[in-house]
This record gives sequence, structure tokens and C-alpha cells, in this order.
Amino acid sequence: MTHVGIFGSAGRMGQAIVIAIESAGATHSGGIDIGEDETALAQASDVIVDFSSPSALLAHLAAARTAKTPILIGTTGLDDSHQAMIDDAAHDIAIIQAANTSLGVNLLTALIEQATARLGADWDIEVLEMHHRHKVDAPSGTALLLGAAAAKGRGKSLPELSRFDHDGRRDEGSIGFASLRGGSVAGDHMVILATEGERIELGHRAEDRGIFARGAVKAALWLADKGPGRYTMADVLGL
Amino acid sequence: MTHVGIFGSAGRMGQAIVIAIESAGATHSGGIDIGEDETALAQASDVIVDFSSPSALLAHLAAARTAKTPILIGTTGLDDSHQAMIDDAAHDIAIIQAANTSLGVNLLTALIEQATARLGADWDIEVLEMHHRHKVDAPSGTALLLGAAAAKGRGKSLPELSRFDHDGRRDEGSIGFASLRGGSVAGDHMVILATEGERIELGHRAEDRGIFARGAVKAALWLADKGPGRYTMADVLGL
Amino acid sequence: MTHVGIFGSAGRMGQAIVIAIESAGATHSGGIDIGEDETALAQASDVIVDFSSPSALLAHLAAARTAKTPILIGTTGLDDSHQAMIDDAAHDIAIIQAANTSLGVNLLTALIEQATARLGADWDIEVLEMHHRHKVDAPSGTALLLGAAAAKGRGKSLPELSRFDHDGRRDEGSIGFASLRGGSVAGDHMVILATEGERIELGHRAEDRGIFARGAVKAALWLADKGPGRYTMADVLGL
Amino acid sequence: MTHVGIFGSAGRMGQAIVIAIESAGATHSGGIDIGEDETALAQASDVIVDFSSPSALLAHLAAARTAKTPILIGTTGLDDSHQAMIDDAAHDIAIIQAANTSLGVNLLTALIEQATARLGADWDIEVLEMHHRHKVDAPSGTALLLGAAAAKGRGKSLPELSRFDHDGRRDEGSIGFASLRGGSVAGDHMVILATEGERIELGHRAEDRGIFARGAVKAALWLADKGPGRYTMADVLGL
Repeated sequence: MTHVGIFGSAGRMGQAIVIAIESAGATHSGGIDIGEDETALAQASDVIVDFSSPSALLAHLAAARTAKTPILIGTTGLDDSHQAMIDDAAHDIAIIQAANTSLGVNLLTALIEQATARLGADWDIEVLEMHHRHKVDAPSGTALLLGAAAAKGRGKSLPELSRFDHDGRRDEGSIGFASLRGGSVAGDHMVILATEGERIELGHRAEDRGIFARGAVKAALWLADKGPGRYTMADVLGL
Repeated sequence: MTHVGIFGSAGRMGQAIVIAIESAGATHSGGIDIGEDETALAQASDVIVDFSSPSALLAHLAAARTAKTPILIGTTGLDDSHQAMIDDAAHDIAIIQAANTSLGVNLLTALIEQATARLGADWDIEVLEMHHRHKVDAPSGTALLLGAAAAKGRGKSLPELSRFDHDGRRDEGSIGFASLRGGSVAGDHMVILATEGERIELGHRAEDRGIFARGAVKAALWLADKGPGRYTMADVLGL
Repeated sequence: MTHVGIFGSAGRMGQAIVIAIESAGATHSGGIDIGEDETALAQASDVIVDFSSPSALLAHLAAARTAKTPILIGTTGLDDSHQAMIDDAAHDIAIIQAANTSLGVNLLTALIEQATARLGADWDIEVLEMHHRHKVDAPSGTALLLGAAAAKGRGKSLPELSRFDHDGRRDEGSIGFASLRGGSVAGDHMVILATEGERIELGHRAEDRGIFARGAVKAALWLADKGPGRYTMADVLGL
Repeated sequence: MTHVGIFGSAGRMGQAIVIAIESAGATHSGGIDIGEDETALAQASDVIVDFSSPSALLAHLAAARTAKTPILIGTTGLDDSHQAMIDDAAHDIAIIQAANTSLGVNLLTALIEQATARLGADWDIEVLEMHHRHKVDAPSGTALLLGAAAAKGRGKSLPELSRFDHDGRRDEGSIGFASLRGGSVAGDHMVILATEGERIELGHRAEDRGIFARGAVKAALWLADKGPGRYTMADVLGL
């Protein structure tokens, strides 16, 4: 039985991860909040899940490295310096760092990249998302992730193709974004590929935020026996 | 059998109306282009359908008035001076003037007004539309029509409630708009009403532009035996 | 401040109602399980919400009647004999009995009836629903409710128009049903009205079962000051 | 410039192919109806598109073989004996035989197979389709094609997993089908993958039947310079 340790267990996400570990049939080897003894927990765990804060990342990586314990990092708000820390630690341990740990969203991302790689520039690309009324940023981070996959399929970066103005005009080959806000929607996303006479719609609907915890635990269990290196959610899905 | 005359029969819409008249089992009493003898055609018709141009409206109304023939006006781009002409002519003949003659869109408009009139301000309102890649204005005129119905249900005008910025923030009670463009989509619209835990989605999908011709002919047949006055598509639907 | 009593407070729905009462700013005057002293609770309450069982209905109505306290009945599985009991009690107190207490579903029901009343028989009617993988009955009770509203709009009963065979054939004017099952979907419903060239889609998405509790509490607060008689969720919505 | 010949040019599909050839910038080298001189046309063409009838297949393959001209076969209603004829002819010429020549549907098919191959059995699979009121068979052939791709992703055949009864019960791992009929819908399809807390929706909407002609011509142009053998629409898409 796999023992999963949690860094950042006090937060709402930490609690969701405890539930996800139990329903996955794994063992929760303990959780700690920032500043507690990370190394002891890492040594008692087969794999670590970290949903804490960017400022704690360096200490958390050091603990995992000392204990030789793989770590899944779901913390958001990481910058290039954090990525460099992760690259460095990956010489010694297995690491997944993911902005979105939902299996469904990660699979959809791969499907979208494949779709735009196969379809010609006569297929227009639009990204639509809906979230609850309290979300103030738009488009959502996941919409941008999906848009980046669509751009990558066309051999481009998202900044080269994205258009955020909403006057209805689209340059050929550009990727448009639209955002809806309302109620308590946990997160709906759809990428629409449209050409003369037909449309492909590739979408994802999240019912609750527990999907991120479940995906993180599934990825952590996959990661537990891996050797040093950086892995991705796509690797977990076998993509 | 009802005889339907067409003002503006040479255009694409005029041709669609000829087809719609035939499939409705009515008789096409003739069509004329701008500058031809409108009065003769009006006298030979039980009702007139006019999809021509704003500049021809005054002459067309005069012909219908002389012949005492009801007229349905689907011409777009009318301003306040045209509305005044129509008001004046309506003292003598039955007139419907409609920006959108699809029965489905007109029914949806009525349902949306009723929905927002019944639901409290804790239901957020969003209007979404998708059209083909060549449409350059956004939101579509029909989206604005649906938004105006939503505002009316709340006892407000659309300018009081509409928000066209797309940064994700919504004031409570505001109506957001989002536009998608791509392929050859004839016109999809959806109004989403969202509150804590649930959503109502009221939508319309147009497959082709023939629906406007069919709705215009249905409305014209309804109008043929009416007395002087202005009527609406809502009257045709019995709303 | 309105005092709301709960009959059947021990169940999952009872607990959801306690939460809904609090978030509505009303006071929870107490809850009892079957067999406890209903009359005392009814006397201490301005209105009662009953989500218990059909077998307890007679005692619950008697308690409400003695206390002259209005009652909202959300209990499912009622038959004609229960309806007769409710009719009788309504001579003395205000009563709402509803199979589905979601405000959104009840509003949608009214919109659907209005839509089918206005559209001709050349508009086909289909009812689609999706629920979680554990739901074994199909179509859902709410789908049947929506189908009955569609039939009523056409001046018919649902048994006259419904077709549950799935071979693709539809008699003109019939109402088809389709059911999807999967995952943990709380309940999505859509009525599709389709004719030559266009479709109207009228749908509802439930994110969680709390919407039934919130709708029941909203209806109960509306009912608290009403005189004897039977009322409906449509009355609550002002339809 | 590529010269495309048409076998079965008199039918509705043949006419659509003429239009598609022109808009693709290729040359229409002639079309013949059943019984005319196939070999002469095949010799004058770089590639043949055949949307005729199963009974004409043997003669058409012989003509293409004599002329050493590749052939795309979109004829439906083929049985095992026809497949054997095609296998035999493919020793000498390049052949694509496809039940559905829409690029969008063929891409979607590949995405669905990949999705079900990556997701575990805790993701339920449902296939939904809507077509016009005159379609009498259900589910549609394309729905079965999509369902077969979903089954293949799980290492099974469709008959092993498909469930066509509609009582709401699903065995774990089974694939459910639902069909809607109404209006003039050209063909909408959606595969829903649903698990605890999330759904992936992979869909296609056809606006008109011209997409099959356009996809057939695109595939034929791709096929024109290929050597002997059987190819598929997936090969055309580079899948």
C-alpha cells in the first residue's frame, strides 16, 4: 500500500486530497503545514503531494530530495525561478509539476493539440469557458492552457495566435477566446473547431473542485515508483 | 388562396420568400424591384412582404396605403424617421415591422423576458452567440434583441444593464455578452440564467437563412385580414 | 423573522433544508423525525416543510391543520389517496405539494408549455436528460414533468403523445424521450423544439441537490402568510 | 492540376462532388452514370470518386484497375463480398473506402479512440445523436462508428460493450446510445465520457451534406499519387 504525504494539508485543497487518498485505497501518511518538519514526513512517505505556496517550494524540494521521495507539485503561481529549482531537484527525484491536475482537462489538452495538428488553417479555433460569478480573471488559466495546446498543434505559440478583442473580427488562423460568468459554475470549457459546413466541439465540464484532488492523487500513485526526472500529467495518462 | 406580393424580389431574400410562399401553399402574386409599379402590385395582392431598402420605404408604404393592402416590413437599417412613416401609415393599413422574422427567435425573446421577470437578481444573465467567420459586428443584432428582452423582464433597458467588457467582472444584475466566430455557422444564440447550484439555458440554432423567409410569409398570411394598426411577431405567435 | 419547522429533518434532504433556511435568513424552529410530536412543532412554526414519507402524510397534515400552519410537501411517491388527503386539508390551511421544488425546473416547465402552445405541429418535440450512473429509472421524473408541460401546451396529455421506443421513428406530433447515464451528473434536462431550418433548446442544469432545498425554503417563506387552499410552485414564481 | 472523375455523377451526391471539386481548385474530368463507359473516364482521370451503388462496384473497380487510376469509394451498403472485391483491386491501385467522408467525423473518431484508451473503466461512455425527422434508423451509422472507436480504445468490439435498451441501467464499462429526431437537423453527434465530478464531451455538428462531398474530394486529391493498397480517411488526416 502506497503512503502519500501531504505538504499544505491545512488548506481546502489539502483536505480534498485526504479524501481522495482514502477513496483511492491508499494510505495518508500524514500532512504538515508550512514550517513543520518536512523531511520527517517525506521519509515516512512513498510520494508527496504539495499544494502549498511558492515561498515554501525550496524547503519542500529539499526535504523530498533528502528523503529520495517523489513529489507532485500542484502549487500555482510559480515563476521561472521556481521552475529552475524543480529542474535542479529532478536530477535526484521524480517530479510532476502541473497547473491543472484534472485528468479530464489534461486528456482534453492532448486531444486538442492533435486535432489542430491534423486540421488545416481553414478550420477556425474558438475557446469558450464559463465559471462562477466570483471569478474575476478572464479567460481562465485552463482556457489559456487549451488555447496553447491548439496553437502548439499548429506549430505556433499562443501569443502568436491569440486574439482577446471582442469585436467579432478574426484574422485567419487566430484563436479567439470568450468568457461567461454566472452562478456557481465550477468550470466548463469548450474548444470549437469550425469550417465550412461542420464543427467539432471538444469540451470539459467540472462539477466540483474535488476532481483536481483526485487527479493529483492518481498522478502521485503513478509517480511513486519512478526514477529521477520531470514527468507530466500527459505521462500519467500514457499520452 | 392568399396572394402575396413581394417588394424587393430580386434580392437573395426575395428569392427565398418566393420559395417560402410556395411551400406555404399561398400564391405569389408577383414581385418587383425598386422603382417598378408598386401600386399595381399592391392592388393585385392580399398582403405585401417588403425586404428592400430603407430609401424605398416611403414609396412602398404609399403604394400599400393606396391599395389598402397590409404590409410586412423586414427591411433592416431603419431609423426613427422610418418608424414615424410606419406609424403614420398604420392609421390606414395593417403593418408588421420586424428586425428578425424567425418564429423561433421571436418566441425565444418572449420566453426570456418572462424568465427574467420571474427570477430574482440572484440569477446572473449571460448572452452567447456564434456566427460564421465573415460576420464582423459583435454581438449580433439578435443577441442584443435577446439581451433587451432579458433587461425588460427586469424592468430596465438594455443600456442600463449591458456590459461589453470582457475582463470577467460582472456587476450584480448586469447582462454579459460573448461572441464566437467560425466556419459557416448561420446563427446560434443562447441566454444563460445562472444562480447558486443551477442554470437555465434558453437557446436557438438557425440552420439556414430560409427561416427568416418562412417566418415572414407566415406572418404575412396572418396579417392579410387584419385592420389598420401596427402588429408584431409576438402577435403572430399569439404571445 | 419567519420560523420554519421541518418534518423529516433526519434525512439527507432535511439536513439540506436546515442549511437553506439559514442562508435564506429565516429561523429553523426545529425538526422532527417520524413519530415525534408534530403538533407541538407545527404550533411553534410559521410554516412547515415536509420531506418525509407518504405513510406519515396523514399525521403531518393533521398536525398542520390543528396548528393552522401552512405546509409545503416535497415528499415523493404520493398516490391519488394522498392527493385526496391534501385536497381535504387545503380547506383549512395553505398547502404546496411539488414533485420538484427547484425554481429553475418549475420556471422551465412553464416556459415549455408556453412554447408548445405557440408553435404549430410542424415543430417536433424531444426531451433529453442526463443523470449519474446510479440512477436506474428512465426517463427521469423531471423529464416526464417537462414532457407533460409540452403536451399540455398542445392541449393533450403526455400519455397521448409520448413515445418511449427508440427506433428513430416518430409519429407527427409525438414527444420523444432520450436518457443518458454517467458519472455523477446531478441532473441535466433539455427540451428540443425542432422544425425546418431551426431549433429552440430549453434546458436546465443542476449542479447539486441543494437547489431542491433552496427552492423548497423559498416556496415555504412565500406560503407562510397565505390563506387556505392549494398553491403551486408556479404561484411562487408569479407565473 | 488534378483531374477528378466521378462515377455516379447523376445523383445528389454526385452534384455536390462537382461543386466540391471546383471549390478545391481541381478539375472535373467528367462524370458518368451507371452503365456508361467507365474505363474511358478512368483513363482521363488522375483519381476517381465513386458514390454510386453496390451493384456497380465490380465494374467500377475493373475500370479503375485497367486504367491504373486510384479510386475513392463512398458508396454505402457494402457487404463482405464487396470488401473482398476492394481488397483484390488494392493489389493494383490505391483505394480508400469510407462510410463517412467528413474530415471532422473521421478526426473525431480518432480522438474518441485515444480518449477511451487513456481513461479507465471508471469513465462511463454515452453516444448521443440527433438527425432530421425523416431518418428512420437509429442509432445513426455515424453514432455506431463513434461507439466502435470508443470500444476499440478499450480493447473491445462494439457488440461486446453496446447497450441499446433504454431503461437507465448500464453495466460498468458498457456504451449507451441515445437518438433524437426532429426538424431538418443534418446530423449532430456527441460522445460523453463521464466520471465522478467531471465530463468530457467530444462532438460534431454537420450543417449540410456538402461536408461529405468536400471530404471525399480532399481525400481523392490526397490519394491521386499513392501506390497500390488500401488507405483510410485516418491516413488522409495523417493520424
